[in-house]
Amino acid sequence: MREFILKANKAITSGNVNLKDLPGSCGRLDLVCRCISSAFFLSHDIRRDTVFYSVHYGEPNPPVALKFVGSELKRLSPDERSIAIFIKKALSKEHNSKWRESTPGIYHAKKDFREIVLEKIEKGRNVYFLHLRGKPIKDVINSRTYNEIKDRGFVFILGDHIGLTEEDERFLNDLKIEKLSLSPLELHANQCIDIVHNILDKLEYRR
Amino acid sequence: MREFILKANKAITSGNVNLKDLPGSCGRLDLVCRCISSAFFLSHDIRRDTVFYSVHYGEPNPPVALKFVGSELKRLSPDERSIAIFIKKALSKEHNSKWRESTPGIYHAKKDFREIVLEKIEKGRNVYFLHLRGKPIKDVINSRTYNEIKDRGFVFILGDHIGLTEEDERFLNDLKIEKLSLSPLELHANQCIDIVHNILDKLEYRR
Ligand SMILES: C[S@@+](CC[C@H](N)C(=O)[O-])C[C@H]1O[C@@H](n2cnc3c(N)ncnc32)[C@H](O)[C@@H]1O
Ligand SMILES: C[S@@+](CC[C@H](N)C(=O)[O-])C[C@H]1O[C@@H](n2cnc3c(N)ncnc32)[C@H](O)[C@@H]1O
Repeated sequence: MREFILKANKAITSGNVNLKDLPGSCGRLDLVCRCISSAFFLSHDIRRDTVFYSVHYGEPNPPVALKFVGSELKRLSPDERSIAIFIKKALSKEHNSKWRESTPGIYHAKKDFREIVLEKIEKGRNVYFLHLRGKPIKDVINSRTYNEIKDRGFVFILGDHIGLTEEDERFLNDLKIEKLSLSPLELHANQCIDIVHNILDKLEYRR
Repeated sequence: MREFILKANKAITSGNVNLKDLPGSCGRLDLVCRCISSAFFLSHDIRRDTVFYSVHYGEPNPPVALKFVGSELKRLSPDERSIAIFIKKALSKEHNSKWRESTPGIYHAKKDFREIVLEKIEKGRNVYFLHLRGKPIKDVINSRTYNEIKDRGFVFILGDHIGLTEEDERFLNDLKIEKLSLSPLELHANQCIDIVHNILDKLEYRR
């Protein structure tokens, strides 16, 4: 099981999604869409073992959390616009503290970033924070460690274009969540998801 | 120098780009846009060492080639829609056999896929064809070989959702272009670009 949690600091929290302006008035909703595209799409399939959370902190009603479950998604296409249409539907619904399904495999709730992270810690997942200045990921997830740890499931936390706040980082540090680096360069969140999947695919499907 | 050549078998070849239907009527122009996003974008910069070619074979006037030069691009954003607007402009122009500039760093021409590949071979570049069933990339580009070969520049050829035709593959084989695999799974072209960049970044910026 592979899970990704994206803290989307400016992403819109109502159904007032302007499909012609995902970057601006929707608070970089385009990035959320590209993350979903990277999280789920293979050439001929959707990754059934993947779950993606985006936690939106933009106006008018932060936070709102969305959850995409790979094993349940139907009719999703990899382009930003069609993903944004599904997000718009989910954001238009009434939220409460429990996940409610908007369209197949897409859930919404009034949950915050920390709550979702804590839940993963409590479930005993391998939780990591992806950060430029972390430990090289291959020092922690590699052919020696993979088989021992994979059954607990993997959770990767990412920031958006702004990244996580100092308070968020302190929160993750206090939980002893390891920081892992994917690259010597600072990348976009969706590019990180492609790279993480590739590392895990090569470990999972080794001959 | 890193170059990518995407053969876009169905991508539109006129300025009649419907921004609301990049996947359908524009022949998977959304994929071309995501490839450009992956080819160039870093968190705080554009990759100045990268050039991206998409060679469009869709209606009404195939082929049309576009070239994006990282060191010259201005005002490009990573979202599909804004990239598609630049593509629309370039496709609307009159093409001839030589590259002409549409907007800063974006060129267009009536060139075909084979011509562009042959040019790279003639320039002595390290040309590779990315394919699921190729040799693992790390057997060919790694810490032992990288410094010897990098100054010749790298060129990676990718297919779109359909892939390359048997004839295209025979053409590349006859030129002795090596097939390299990035993953045990079949991915989308933009995901492949993220992975290639990551492999090269780790070799280029090793401490
Ligand atoms: C655009 S970057 C964030 C940059 C932001 N200015 C900051 O200072 O955090 C988006 C996210 O991608 C992830 N990321 C980017 N580069 C990374 C790298 N080299 N290794 C691991 N994660 C990375 C991090 O989770 C980051 O929050
Ligand atoms: C969606 S795939 C093409 C699938 C197409 N059905 C075919 O049979 O070729 C798009 C392109 O990404 C590249 N690609 C996909 N998976 C790859 C892998 N595992 N290793 C290397 N390149 C890959 C190839 O260049 C391919 O043409």
